[in-house]
Amino acid sequence: MATSAPPAQKRARAGRPPSLAAPRERILEEAAKLFARSGYDGSSVSDLAAALGVSKAAIYHYYTTKQDIYDAIILGVLSGLTQTVGQEVARADGGAARLRAFMVGHARYFELHHAEFVTMLIGYSGMALPEREDAARLRDGYEQRLRELIAQGVAEGVFRPLDVPATGRAVLSMLNWMVRWYKPGQGDSAERIAAGYFDLLVGGMRA
Amino acid sequence: MATSAPPAQKRARAGRPPSLAAPRERILEEAAKLFARSGYDGSSVSDLAAALGVSKAAIYHYYTTKQDIYDAIILGVLSGLTQTVGQEVARADGGAARLRAFMVGHARYFELHHAEFVTMLIGYSGMALPEREDAARLRDGYEQRLRELIAQGVAEGVFRPLDVPATGRAVLSMLNWMVRWYKPGQGDSAERIAAGYFDLLVGGMRA
Repeated sequence: MATSAPPAQKRARAGRPPSLAAPRERILEEAAKLFARSGYDGSSVSDLAAALGVSKAAIYHYYTTKQDIYDAIILGVLSGLTQTVGQEVARADGGAARLRAFMVGHARYFELHHAEFVTMLIGYSGMALPEREDAARLRDGYEQRLRELIAQGVAEGVFRPLDVPATGRAVLSMLNWMVRWYKPGQGDSAERIAAGYFDLLVGGMRA
Repeated sequence: MATSAPPAQKRARAGRPPSLAAPRERILEEAAKLFARSGYDGSSVSDLAAALGVSKAAIYHYYTTKQDIYDAIILGVLSGLTQTVGQEVARADGGAARLRAFMVGHARYFELHHAEFVTMLIGYSGMALPEREDAARLRDGYEQRLRELIAQGVAEGVFRPLDVPATGRAVLSMLNWMVRWYKPGQGDSAERIAAGYFDLLVGGMRA
């Protein structure tokens, strides 16, 4: 109908982008969905502008390049994860409880930020993963925290003497691989799956 | 120098592609390296032709599209893995030995076909993973085989009663996540890492 409002994209092209509430957050949220669905290479700032119903200029006002947006997503999810899981672990008492808090807290955060995790862990294809130093530092610090709490459990005599780095890697492998198969809202919650992994790892398979 | 042979790419453009020995295998081998390095979207048939020193036509003689080449890599690695690991498991005796043979055999095959695994598991970015039915069937059959040998171990009383699908997933998560961090030729072999994962999973962390 001639009297209906023009679609968002058309308005945007006409140079009157509707303003976004909390624009930086909205841009990152929508970009994560786009990267998770189509990969970094398969997503453009134009696609993002269309999804948000704003002009490309409105996005470039906040982020200079597509890579900037990607980096902001990774840094955001890594710092949020580190902080949230850190709080969960701090509330737990004893080596086993701390490991459980780490694994379950990680899985809960993953479920709540699914698109961001997919973007971080499989958004880029191939081995040519560009990485920012601050992102690498956060990720290494997170893995280091996990190793410390495993070593602490060994020192307390709760865990047997273990290859601490390899054990930490086993824990993160199980949690991280969920980005490949886990569908939020279908079947068990991520939290419940992580609790199952904890029981398996701590108790072992041996009868 | 005027008397030197023209470079391979130039010869290729001139319409006299050098013939490849075992052309299908060579094309897949080189394509896997390319997909592993740059991802599916970041690789073209022209890149592949240049890497092989042949014309694009020489490649199209064997494979119709880039997707055909990708599919042939995935099908090849999945059937090779299934066959190789199946033989290793068949030679092992008892529930625990069979699981160890599966994990170590998987890791050995992964190390020998590193580029193909990277292509299969992280060659495509984002969630939009196109999948062929035959590839899905092979992958599901492989996971099913793992579940059977875990269930068999439980039935034999070697393993405690376990959530079999979740345990199988834990095993494959640890093995599959290696595509993200493992660098062939650096540090421990993939086989040794898998043997460590087996000990951890079967023995458990509890002191």
